[in-house]
Amino acid sequence: MKKGIKKRNPTPRKYGKKKQILPKVQEQILGLGPKIINSILIGLRENDKPHVRKIVEGLDEYDLAKLIEVLDVDERKKLIGFLEGHIDPGVFPELNDVVQEQVIETLNENQIVNIVNELDSDEAVEILEHMDDDEQKSIINRLDPELKYQVKSSLHYPEDSAGRIMSRDFVHMPENWTVKEAKKFLLTDENLPDEFYTVFLTDENMHPTGELTLDKLLRAKAGESLSAIMDGEIVPVSAYTDQEEVAHMFREYGWMSAEVVDNKGRLVGVINIDDVVNIVHEEASEDIMHLSGAEEGDVYKSVKDIFKSRVPWLLTNLAATILASSVVREFQDIIAQISILAVLMPIVASMGGTTGNQTLAVVVRALATKELTSRNTIRMIFKEFMVGLLNGMLFAGLIALITRLLFPDYQQMCLIIAIAMVCNLCIASLAGILIPLTLNKFKVDPAVSSGVFLIALTDSGGYFIFLGLAKFLLF
Amino acid sequence: MKKGIKKRNPTPRKYGKKKQILPKVQEQILGLGPKIINSILIGLRENDKPHVRKIVEGLDEYDLAKLIEVLDVDERKKLIGFLEGHIDPGVFPELNDVVQEQVIETLNENQIVNIVNELDSDEAVEILEHMDDDEQKSIINRLDPELKYQVKSSLHYPEDSAGRIMSRDFVHMPENWTVKEAKKFLLTDENLPDEFYTVFLTDENMHPTGELTLDKLLRAKAGESLSAIMDGEIVPVSAYTDQEEVAHMFREYGWMSAEVVDNKGRLVGVINIDDVVNIVHEEASEDIMHLSGAEEGDVYKSVKDIFKSRVPWLLTNLAATILASSVVREFQDIIAQISILAVLMPIVASMGGTTGNQTLAVVVRALATKELTSRNTIRMIFKEFMVGLLNGMLFAGLIALITRLLFPDYQQMCLIIAIAMVCNLCIASLAGILIPLTLNKFKVDPAVSSGVFLIALTDSGGYFIFLGLAKFLLF
Repeated sequence: MKKGIKKRNPTPRKYGKKKQILPKVQEQILGLGPKIINSILIGLRENDKPHVRKIVEGLDEYDLAKLIEVLDVDERKKLIGFLEGHIDPGVFPELNDVVQEQVIETLNENQIVNIVNELDSDEAVEILEHMDDDEQKSIINRLDPELKYQVKSSLHYPEDSAGRIMSRDFVHMPENWTVKEAKKFLLTDENLPDEFYTVFLTDENMHPTGELTLDKLLRAKAGESLSAIMDGEIVPVSAYTDQEEVAHMFREYGWMSAEVVDNKGRLVGVINIDDVVNIVHEEASEDIMHLSGAEEGDVYKSVKDIFKSRVPWLLTNLAATILASSVVREFQDIIAQISILAVLMPIVASMGGTTGNQTLAVVVRALATKELTSRNTIRMIFKEFMVGLLNGMLFAGLIALITRLLFPDYQQMCLIIAIAMVCNLCIASLAGILIPLTLNKFKVDPAVSSGVFLIALTDSGGYFIFLGLAKFLLF
Repeated sequence: MKKGIKKRNPTPRKYGKKKQILPKVQEQILGLGPKIINSILIGLRENDKPHVRKIVEGLDEYDLAKLIEVLDVDERKKLIGFLEGHIDPGVFPELNDVVQEQVIETLNENQIVNIVNELDSDEAVEILEHMDDDEQKSIINRLDPELKYQVKSSLHYPEDSAGRIMSRDFVHMPENWTVKEAKKFLLTDENLPDEFYTVFLTDENMHPTGELTLDKLLRAKAGESLSAIMDGEIVPVSAYTDQEEVAHMFREYGWMSAEVVDNKGRLVGVINIDDVVNIVHEEASEDIMHLSGAEEGDVYKSVKDIFKSRVPWLLTNLAATILASSVVREFQDIIAQISILAVLMPIVASMGGTTGNQTLAVVVRALATKELTSRNTIRMIFKEFMVGLLNGMLFAGLIALITRLLFPDYQQMCLIIAIAMVCNLCIASLAGILIPLTLNKFKVDPAVSSGVFLIALTDSGGYFIFLGLAKFLLF
């Protein structure tokens, strides 16, 4: 689908004199009001296929996408069934990834081929890459020859690579053309993209040599050579580069677009900054979800799918907490004698977990955004340890005081919990940075599994130090 | 500073035949190698001002920004002191926010005025908005008249609003011009931005009526009216709109740029998609940090500042965990009699916390990205409760089995922990969605404080149900 199809103005916005902070855009801007949604819902419930189809036909691709997203899993399935494959292909790029997959699953091969044939290659790849190999192969073989070639070569690159997300629909010219030749080409060529901002220049081997934004072209003299006015300071991106890395380079260097090259340095595609917005959004969402053991798109999933996706994380947490419990078990006898140990021990463990999680969030994010370099890692470890130590001392003092007030009969308890607090907060800070750094070194996503290691350590450690000290000092 | 200054090619990238997944771009691309950094560090240590300044003069603005970021807080201060205000103004927009503030703090008013005078208004606003009122006023009064006016009107809009981040440096024309007139203007006008992609069209009252990308202009006939070929389906954004909302609209509607209007609907600025990349990045980082009680930019802060920023969250967590402890305290007597209660109780609490956090991450993110609408909120609450119930039953079975194996003498303990597990996981799931929804309703950022309420509830709840049941059934 062409760029810019999303630009629309369903109901004109009023400016108003009041401050417009966080208006309810979604429901305000859309042509898709609650009335239409309700009407569809009634139609679905009453199996009134003609009614539903009639309403859907009145919606543009953007509204239909929103409608599909807003429905529940079963309603969604039913609606797609009613449409019998008569879905505007432009709907698919607008859908949330999870929803897109759900819709595609309900279509048969013929319907999918018809839809994919109408899409740009990067949009087609997005749909095809989630399918299993046999289905994917069979559909690709039935695509139009040009799209088939493009999709095949994109899928040849690894998942989440520049080669997968790049657009193959861009304007390129030989660098030795003149401005006049370029303008003539733009006026007469019929295969230009619907919207473009930059012309990409290449040498005779299709190696990118520079780029020219249209404002420069508009303002240049007719006889000038493109190579003389182009911006030649480009940094082509290998098609194998990970998309997170690509997004990082866009942010870091303020790019508006980037040339993607194959193994031989030939220009094969272009990534534009609007694709990068989505990548930044997705990767950040992924980090947030992974840190808590949840998954993206749960809003659109069925109870069964959400349930299944959350079990593994809970299982690892169960293991971590059983490990911590086994530490407590070793001290069962002293707890039986001084039961306030059981009252106080969760405080040490919990403060450790919280401290470690603060560090963890900072480090995981800094790793993702490449703010942790070889130069500042050692320093960061030292700083985090110092912060842990300072907080340890502060909260050791506080908890000693509180313990003294709550349990005036056990004077030594203040000392025990204070020492345990300092130690556990230092351990937690160090763990909060060393665990993600280690996982990162071994190419494991630090956002996914750091948390459970951390909690295993701060809980077990907290119990062990606190109860161990108590045993040592009180018995 | 002009758009596109960041585009550079320090050392040309080799394509190589191997897969280039996550190459070390930062150190590879930069002209700023470890040698230069070391040389600077030695110069700083030996107080060799001329040496340091000579190296810095050889760096372009981008490398200097990176150098400043990579230094430690004290080194940074020293370096800026050595430069005595001779810093390329173009460095400032390149700096991380936290670092930018640190650097500005070390400069005197004269130096700041000289620097800000060289910046675009949006960049100037970014520097000025963090200052205290007196200092800000005094600097603004000394700015060049045009910039002064622009900065003042931008600062009039609330923090993080469209009015603050918009650029005032854009190309606009009356919609009734012809293509020929437009092209002539673009060829002859000397105040055009250094790079632009779109021409914004207005009526006689400066109300935006449409936009025209340069490719359309290039390909249009000379005599045509701009209003005939423009894209008139624009949705102007109020200058009071929150930046998160703006970013959402860009992502949602696939915009490349947006018109910003004042109270009277007049075009006062433009937001481009490259600004949006930064907003999406920042807002997501903020959510990640807030969920864990940390802050953005800790990588660049001193131990003292990090320490201070983390104390409030640890304090609230201390309160939550003391609350939970006080629940345990009520059951001290039965723990003294059956100490395995102390062994098992953390398992119930911890599994509740983990379950709740999964839901919390999904809900906080869905609220931020506006995926939770009035239509699907009730359904989502139901779904999360069902997921909690299912997981509760699954893990109740598991933990009952494990308890049976570990403590075969206490048959009733399996039943007690199983019931407590189901209840606590249901409570946790509900809390994970209801807490952020409630905070959001009261305009409190759900990312900031949901976590501590959740933990207070799942810990206290877990202990209460487990120990309460034990007391009821065993005594």
